[in-house]
Amino acid sequence: MSEMPMIFIGKRPTMNYVLAVMTEFNSGANRVVIKARGRVTAKAIDVAEIVKNRFLKDVTIEKMETDTESLPSNDGRTVSVSSLEITLLKA
Amino acid sequence: MSEMPMIFIGKRPTMNYVLAVMTEFNSGANRVVIKARGRVTAKAIDVAEIVKNRFLKDVTIEKMETDTESLPSNDGRTVSVSSLEITLLKA
Repeated sequence: MSEMPMIFIGKRPTMNYVLAVMTEFNSGANRVVIKARGRVTAKAIDVAEIVKNRFLKDVTIEKMETDTESLPSNDGRTVSVSSLEITLLKA
Repeated sequence: MSEMPMIFIGKRPTMNYVLAVMTEFNSGANRVVIKARGRVTAKAIDVAEIVKNRFLKDVTIEKMETDTESLPSNDGRTVSVSSLEITLLKA
């Protein structure tokens, strides 16, 4: 199975990640995975929607998966955070 | 096709929506749909994860769909907002 490029969503503006995804597709990738944790899962959805609706009409969402990850918090306890993984597929 | 209960995610605390979903399942629903728009799509994912991981182990995510909706903004223009629909299924 070939390597799939991964784009990790963080605090930068949405369009930065849109550009990153498009760069991967334009470099020949058939699939690009967008990953996000916590509040920025909403931004991951924005990125996927913008890429497929506004820029690359032949891209669709192949798969969406959620998960719960346990992370150490600042006070030493463990917090549960939702994560989202969106696989985009270019036809 | 039977009616599926819908829970619309808004500004209230996450656990309010978790409770609303669980109430529907406990009232006999086999499927519950969670809908959200914009930033609170992240909260919708939290609600789904908490319901299935912490409270109802026989519930799974059957389907997740994203969309882009056009809404009028305060200054009279139109803004595009991502939406998310998660269908939870009870085994």
